[in-house]
This record gives sequence, C-alpha cells and structure tokens, in this order.
Amino acid sequence: MNLRPPVTLADIAREAQVSIGTVSRVLNGREGTIKISQATASRVLDAAQRLGYQPNPFAAALRTQRTGVLGAILRDMGDPFLSELARALQRAAHKQGFELLIGHADYDQETAQRQVAFMLNHWFDGLFLLGNIPGDAALLAMVQQSRTPCVAVASGMQLPVPLVTVDEVQGTLLSLEYLFHLGHRHIAFVGYMEHAGVSERLATFRQFVQDRGLVWHDEYELRCGCTSGDVSSRLHQLLSLSSPPTAIFCASDVLALRTMSIAWQHGFHLPDQLSIIGFDDIESAAESAPALTTICQPIPLMAHEAVSMLRTLIDGLLYDVDQDRRIVQPELIVRASCSSARP
Amino acid sequence: MNLRPPVTLADIAREAQVSIGTVSRVLNGREGTIKISQATASRVLDAAQRLGYQPNPFAAALRTQRTGVLGAILRDMGDPFLSELARALQRAAHKQGFELLIGHADYDQETAQRQVAFMLNHWFDGLFLLGNIPGDAALLAMVQQSRTPCVAVASGMQLPVPLVTVDEVQGTLLSLEYLFHLGHRHIAFVGYMEHAGVSERLATFRQFVQDRGLVWHDEYELRCGCTSGDVSSRLHQLLSLSSPPTAIFCASDVLALRTMSIAWQHGFHLPDQLSIIGFDDIESAAESAPALTTICQPIPLMAHEAVSMLRTLIDGLLYDVDQDRRIVQPELIVRASCSSARP
Repeated sequence: MNLRPPVTLADIAREAQVSIGTVSRVLNGREGTIKISQATASRVLDAAQRLGYQPNPFAAALRTQRTGVLGAILRDMGDPFLSELARALQRAAHKQGFELLIGHADYDQETAQRQVAFMLNHWFDGLFLLGNIPGDAALLAMVQQSRTPCVAVASGMQLPVPLVTVDEVQGTLLSLEYLFHLGHRHIAFVGYMEHAGVSERLATFRQFVQDRGLVWHDEYELRCGCTSGDVSSRLHQLLSLSSPPTAIFCASDVLALRTMSIAWQHGFHLPDQLSIIGFDDIESAAESAPALTTICQPIPLMAHEAVSMLRTLIDGLLYDVDQDRRIVQPELIVRASCSSARP
Repeated sequence: MNLRPPVTLADIAREAQVSIGTVSRVLNGREGTIKISQATASRVLDAAQRLGYQPNPFAAALRTQRTGVLGAILRDMGDPFLSELARALQRAAHKQGFELLIGHADYDQETAQRQVAFMLNHWFDGLFLLGNIPGDAALLAMVQQSRTPCVAVASGMQLPVPLVTVDEVQGTLLSLEYLFHLGHRHIAFVGYMEHAGVSERLATFRQFVQDRGLVWHDEYELRCGCTSGDVSSRLHQLLSLSSPPTAIFCASDVLALRTMSIAWQHGFHLPDQLSIIGFDDIESAAESAPALTTICQPIPLMAHEAVSMLRTLIDGLLYDVDQDRRIVQPELIVRASCSSARP
C-alpha cells in the first residue's frame, strides 16, 4: 500500500524545473502558443516517471461524464467583432473536440442569467463570456457556485475569472502614435463607453493628449451610449465645429465606419480632409471606402488561447493563477483611411 | 363512460364556421397578426362548450415535460440580416415564455447536424432554422424523426416544413419598378446565389428585363459565391465597363453596401452617377452614405409569426397544413441611394 500523497503537477514542475503550465501541456499533449522543446518535454516525462506520477482517477472519471459541449454568452450578436470572435471560438472548440452553443444576452442581465442557468443545468462542460455583459458579476457568482469552468474573452480586465483580452493601452498608443507621426495635432475620440476596454482606451487617449500637448477642445471627446442612438447627431456636431479635428480615433471599427459615412455626408473628402482610425479589424474594415486603417485584435489567437484555458480548467488540472490573464498584443493595420495632416 | 371520440379543434372550427387557426388562437388565448373579433371569439367558445371539448390530457402531460427552451440553427452569425432575425426571434420567444439558444452552423453541414443532435438529446421544445443551411434536408430528417417541432425562417420555399418567408417576387418587383420609374434602363443584378430566395429574385429580375425591354449586357448579371471572395473583383469589372449600368439591384443590403464602397473607390458620385438598391433593410442600411434605399423584410413580424407557429406545433394542436407557409409582404424603403437616370 502506497502511503505517499499523490504526486501533483506542481511536484513534477519543481523536479523538472519548469512551470506547471508546461507540465500540464506535456502530460496532456496540448499545443500552446509557445513551442516546448524536445529536451524540456523529456525532462518533464522523466521527472513524472521518477516521482511515480499517476493521472488523477477522479479527474478521469469526471472526464467520462462530459457532454463535450461548451456555451458562449454573447453580449450582442449584432456586434461584428463579437460575432467574429464567437465564430473563431467555435472553430477553435471544434479543433479541440468540443461543440459550442451560443446564448445571446442581448444587453440584458436577466436574459443572460436564464441562459447560463440552462447551460449549468444541462451539464455544459464550460462557459465563455464574450464581451462585457450587464450584471456579469452576478453571472459569475452563479457559474462559480456550480464549479463550472469559465473564461471571459474581450470582457475587460475587471472580472475575477481567467480571461483573454487585448492590450488596450498598447493598441491605443499604436493608433495615436501613428496619427501623431502623420502630423495630426487635432485628434478627437469617439467610443461606446459601455463596451469593455473603452474606458482604458479613453484614459490612454487623455494621457497622450496631455503628454504630447495636442490641441484640445472639449467637443473632441465623444463618450457615447451604444443604445441611446445619439452617436450620429454628436458626430454631426463634431464635424460642424469651426475647428474640427483633422483625425478621429474611434474605439471600434463599427464606430469608425459610421463616422466615415457621416463625414462623406458632410462633404469631407476622405482621407485628405479627415483621417479616421478604428479598433478591432472586423472583416468589413477592409471593404470600406477608403479601406479602414485600424488596430487588429488577433481574434484567432484569442479564441485559441481561450479554448485552451477552458480546456485546462475542465480537465481539472492544477492551474497557475499567475497565468490566468492572457494579454494578447494588438497590431496596427495600415490601409487607406489616414493621411498626412495638411499644414 | 363517454364513448364518443374526443372533440377536436377541427370539429369546433366546423361548428363555429371559422378556421382551425382561429379556434386554436381563441382557446389558447394567443395573439396573432389578425385581430379576432369578440363575436367570433364568443362563437368559438360556445361551439367548444356545446360539443363538450376537453383539452387533450396527453398534450397537457407533455407540456409539463417541457424545458421551455427553443433552439435556432443559424447559417451564419456574420450575416447582419440573420443576426437581427435571431435577436427578434429571441425577443418574440421571451414574450411567449420561451428561452432561445443558438447554434451556429457556420455554413457547415456537419456542424449543424451535431448541434441539432445536441438540442434533440437535451429536450429542446422546438427548433428554428434561420437561413438555408447546407444539408438542410438531412437536418430536417433528423428533426422529424425525433418528432421535435421545427419552423424554417428565411430559408427559402423548398423545405417540407412549416416556414415563414418574404414574398421574393413582390420584393424584387417593388425594387425594379421603382428604378424603372426613375428612368433606369441599364440595370445590373448582384447576388449571392447560395442564399435562400436569391434564385427567385434573379428569375424575377430576368423576367422584368425581358418584359420591359431593358438594355442588356451579359456582364450585368453577377451571380456570386458568398465564400469565394470574388465579389469585389467582379464589381470592379462591372463598374469599369464602357457601358456601365446606371442602377444596380443588389439581392442583399450587405452586397449593396459593398457595391457602394467600390463605386466610391471608382470615383462614381452616388447617387447621381449610379443608383444602388438593396434587399433586407438591415440596421446599418440607414447609416450608409448615401443612406440605402432598400426592400424591407419585416423582421419583427416574421419572428412573431415563426414563434407562434412553433408554439402551436409544440402545443400539439391540430395544424392546418394549408397555413404552414406564411408569406409576409416586403416594403420599399426609399432613402437616398437612388436618383433619376440621367438622360
């Protein structure tokens, strides 16, 4: 009879001098974004053998009770970024052997809660939250009580749950530096303040304006409500100013495309008279006139990371809390919607 | 002991001289698009009492086994028309006491089948198919074998299942008559041929061209593949013709907005040099530059009808097969993307 306590992944990690995440990946044959060398893999396997590691039979038993189905609660199906993210998550889930069903929160807390309750009652293996959902703290409490693994994607940095999100500060700086180098000193901000990450983008914008001593009018900051429908009238006001901006930083591509339409209607010639930059890089960004310069959130990578994180949690593996937040790096995609500021 | 066969809704309908649908609505207190007068309602209730109608206890028993959850299989989440339809269906389902979960077929037959299988295994009360889904005949066979009620919405006219769809011929004619009255005689067609209803729109377009003796070039007919990505290059070709069309009938708003962008890039001034008309009336149609003139598919009405049909099927009520196809009427929405043809 073996009286020693069971060997954990943490024991193996110590023995092999690698992270717990690496042990988990090697023992479970998972891919990750960082390749594991053959040498490291051998060291992990040797350490596991030396210590007499046995996979946890309880985890294995649980594993057989899986439904193989994941759920995604989506803030808003009409948001192209979120629907592209949901599609990518589904494809990543399929690759890892899971089915995905979608609950549409439709910006409504009660709707989201009922859908989560259904998913929990029907033994979904794990859940994703996509975008920030009204009442998400209450949702998470339900999920955590049920001990169902959950990963938040593009839901901001505030939720006490493993999450995958883009580096908001870096994305905003990439955008603003680009406009600055094109000579723009009159830059406006437009954003839907209810959306996750937009307050970080605004804070970074304000800091940039101050640090670089840009020209400033209070009308240059359009903090909009996404359901209040006041965006169009406020954009019209912005473009009617006696001193309109020469460039607009839009906190989403959807807003950038709207801004573009309204600018055309106001008789601005794009991009010579007004530069517009977006955020997200949704599919239709490449098809606007002019094609939209924007900040790409790497959707396939975010989806892959989110599915891998959720799978690790579902497998009941020890999970390094320090790795719970995967901040992915955005990229500037230069197309045709920004030009040099006219002297 | 009562040896008479049970009284059916059909018996009551005959006795009260109204349709079975009317009987169902009165006895179940459902709203419909056509108001039922107090006189008719009284006649139905009197007839039911006279005949000794009893609600089917088996249906009542089944009712208690309901999950209260409906499923919607969506061809493509990235299609704004379908995502707006899904949102409207969800809202209509909530009004009638149901939850809705969404399966994203992502244009893939196998994906759709696995999701339907999950929904059937988890006692979803009924299913919607939204848009035409690859392999939908095989899907339907699965659904019908399980005896789970199913309604197809915006999935074309071909499926042997209760369906709600727009009058394609009427929508196309509204559009073409409008362009014709503006003086256009060079009208092109652009459509994604894989999408439900587009072949009917094309057939109506061809007939119209012939009947009115419009000017014709083979290049005026762009039958596109929605996943092949050749739309942009073909639109560029169309607009580069020595005799380009003066108006373009687009079989979806998404295509109309793409066409608009490409026309701007080609230096066409819209709408004076080129009129563009869409189909669907998605939300962003009102925000393009110029705002898109289009054919409205009445999404809230379609959603309401679809949920009512599905609920009637779930209730196990006798169902008049003649009423299985609800063809809703489209409407021309005149905005700013069409102008008179220049002489």
